[in-house]
Amino acid sequence: MARVSRRFLEDSSSGATTMAFAQLASEAKRKPVIDLTLGQPDVTPPQTLVELLATEARGVGASRYPPPQGLAEYREAVASYMRDFYGVDAEPERVVALAGAKPGIAAAIYSVCDHGDAMLVLTPHFYAYVNAARMLGVKPVMARLRWDGGRLFIDEDEVKKAFEEHKPCLVIVNTPHNPTGLHLDRETLKLIGDLASEHNTLVLSDEVYSWLVFRGEHVPLLRLLGEERVIHLESFSKTLAIPGWRVGFLYAPREVVKATVFFNSNVYTGIPRFIQLAVAKYITAYREDMVEYVERVRKLYGRRARVFTEALSQLEDLIDVYEPAAGFFLFPRVERLIEKLGVGSAERLVELMAREVGVLAVPGTVFGEEWRGYIRVSLTAPESRLREAAARIGELATRGA
Amino acid sequence: MARVSRRFLEDSSSGATTMAFAQLASEAKRKPVIDLTLGQPDVTPPQTLVELLATEARGVGASRYPPPQGLAEYREAVASYMRDFYGVDAEPERVVALAGAKPGIAAAIYSVCDHGDAMLVLTPHFYAYVNAARMLGVKPVMARLRWDGGRLFIDEDEVKKAFEEHKPCLVIVNTPHNPTGLHLDRETLKLIGDLASEHNTLVLSDEVYSWLVFRGEHVPLLRLLGEERVIHLESFSKTLAIPGWRVGFLYAPREVVKATVFFNSNVYTGIPRFIQLAVAKYITAYREDMVEYVERVRKLYGRRARVFTEALSQLEDLIDVYEPAAGFFLFPRVERLIEKLGVGSAERLVELMAREVGVLAVPGTVFGEEWRGYIRVSLTAPESRLREAAARIGELATRGA
Repeated sequence: MARVSRRFLEDSSSGATTMAFAQLASEAKRKPVIDLTLGQPDVTPPQTLVELLATEARGVGASRYPPPQGLAEYREAVASYMRDFYGVDAEPERVVALAGAKPGIAAAIYSVCDHGDAMLVLTPHFYAYVNAARMLGVKPVMARLRWDGGRLFIDEDEVKKAFEEHKPCLVIVNTPHNPTGLHLDRETLKLIGDLASEHNTLVLSDEVYSWLVFRGEHVPLLRLLGEERVIHLESFSKTLAIPGWRVGFLYAPREVVKATVFFNSNVYTGIPRFIQLAVAKYITAYREDMVEYVERVRKLYGRRARVFTEALSQLEDLIDVYEPAAGFFLFPRVERLIEKLGVGSAERLVELMAREVGVLAVPGTVFGEEWRGYIRVSLTAPESRLREAAARIGELATRGA
Repeated sequence: MARVSRRFLEDSSSGATTMAFAQLASEAKRKPVIDLTLGQPDVTPPQTLVELLATEARGVGASRYPPPQGLAEYREAVASYMRDFYGVDAEPERVVALAGAKPGIAAAIYSVCDHGDAMLVLTPHFYAYVNAARMLGVKPVMARLRWDGGRLFIDEDEVKKAFEEHKPCLVIVNTPHNPTGLHLDRETLKLIGDLASEHNTLVLSDEVYSWLVFRGEHVPLLRLLGEERVIHLESFSKTLAIPGWRVGFLYAPREVVKATVFFNSNVYTGIPRFIQLAVAKYITAYREDMVEYVERVRKLYGRRARVFTEALSQLEDLIDVYEPAAGFFLFPRVERLIEKLGVGSAERLVELMAREVGVLAVPGTVFGEEWRGYIRVSLTAPESRLREAAARIGELATRGA
């Protein structure tokens, strides 16, 4: 057998990804399956954008290497987007085009953290934060998020202690939040900012769900904490329903930009010109179409969030659930359901749900080992299917009784 | 100033990439510039392939997440391509779709090497081998390649010693070779294979230039060393003149496949479905078109290689050059030219060439610190321009006298 690195064996043993759970579908007895695993928009992307892509794909020079920082056209379009929507006087020189948001996580960690450093992660958390850190020899340190009454916040003492004990190279903040669908409030963000400032730590702000806010307002972290403190990370995957195009960006202090460009140059070069050009044109020359599209999608997910929360709330003996303020997901607590069914863990529950009632979800442990009593379900199915999913879970609970 | 990791500062100080040198163009007094920096095909990709891309971009589901291992259609097409052209009974389960060949380098190192391990690199070498290793905390150990009479080979004792002293986790072999454009002979490959086998080391075989062999025959390393010893890495960038599409693959033992899929999942997810589908259809349903295209391009580069070698050979007092057997590049020794012009290094020579005569090249040091006396020039310009480039270099030498 070929030798495999110990680090992969260790990383992968605790480094599950959501994608692995989409494969449960094949085991389901009950068809059709309701797949609520991925943050995969079930709406189609704007038709104008798709046409722009097809046109740009045929363009002269479309097949040539992209520069690792991204095309000037793309970086200018992103800067203009940030000026108009975030009120930030963004410079194209500080934008780096990325293959979605993910490479920005690894690149940011590479940029500011050395081997053996600690990085602060608020958990539950997107799996790639921890997996990318481990790949790069950086130690993730966890601070547990708390939520109550539909509000997401940190334990101030815990986070302060983490800063003091570990002197983290980077702190990752994600709001709107995956998997809970909640927002960190300004007070919490301000506190993290103060601590980061005090310890001269950069904040990686993952804002891929910034356009899907159902209640309240989204203010980008770089507006709150200052542009020199924040690496702003964003993707068009959710906003424009194009996760498969792999197109996103980061906006960062100049030193981080340099390191990210070096990361791109050595890990995947960059993203196709035609994809950059199509998105750049769409978000500038078709601004009205974009705003109308995003608004429509936002309302759609907002309604689904309400409907699904209500439907799951009817299983209140077994499931605790908050209505999300934003994003793609619910993160219900299912401890009592696990207990009632005698399956022992969220992983087993998810397998049972897949097999017996054809509802696919992701166990909470994908977002941190301690989230054993939770599952993540996405809002990426029509309202009637979300109601049906809740009913099927209820049926499973009855059957298991 | 934001804190930047020491590792980036160290990596980037010795980790130049070819892309940085393409920017010299802006300094050139003499226009138009002849850009010989990148392995960027100047031919257009097959029109059929471009049309397939535009069609697939509009397809239902084109915008959805790709699976991190790649679509079944793509992996099956690659397996069939390997069966038909390499005579390998390839299994689609052992193919991983990659964003070009580059992510395969980082993924392979991650898969088999632990932090602090040594990795054996034959130098001169593609920069990403060393930069990706350093990013992942792996120590590159160099063995110098030698060439003579248009033959590329290793120093047997040096490579044996490297294996014994460093017990490398991985050895990277690249043939056809960048930057020299030469081939490692079978005897050399066999020797590396024996040593790898003896030390239970995997071989990463970078074969991105496999389709551009002007003289001799290309036999994939996995045919020579066995499929369990080799991670075969390939890209369609050069073969189909689509470097900007970022599409390639690796074929590896199952354990490495798993680790590479995990790497993809956490670093960039995967590559767009429409790109995978267009390439998959082209290399299977349009096989005849593909073979005819590649053959035409191969002949074109072969003629350019001869013409440019002859033109540079006329400066024999100043430049030593071999005619490449394959690939995109010449790697002439320019020590005497550097001396005559009194510039002291290949970096300075490259700057002078750019500024004074508008010929852009890459200094040998990009391919290893010790290659100070060399430059790399690509074959990605028409014959008349390559003759003109040689004439301009001659003119610079005269002027400098």
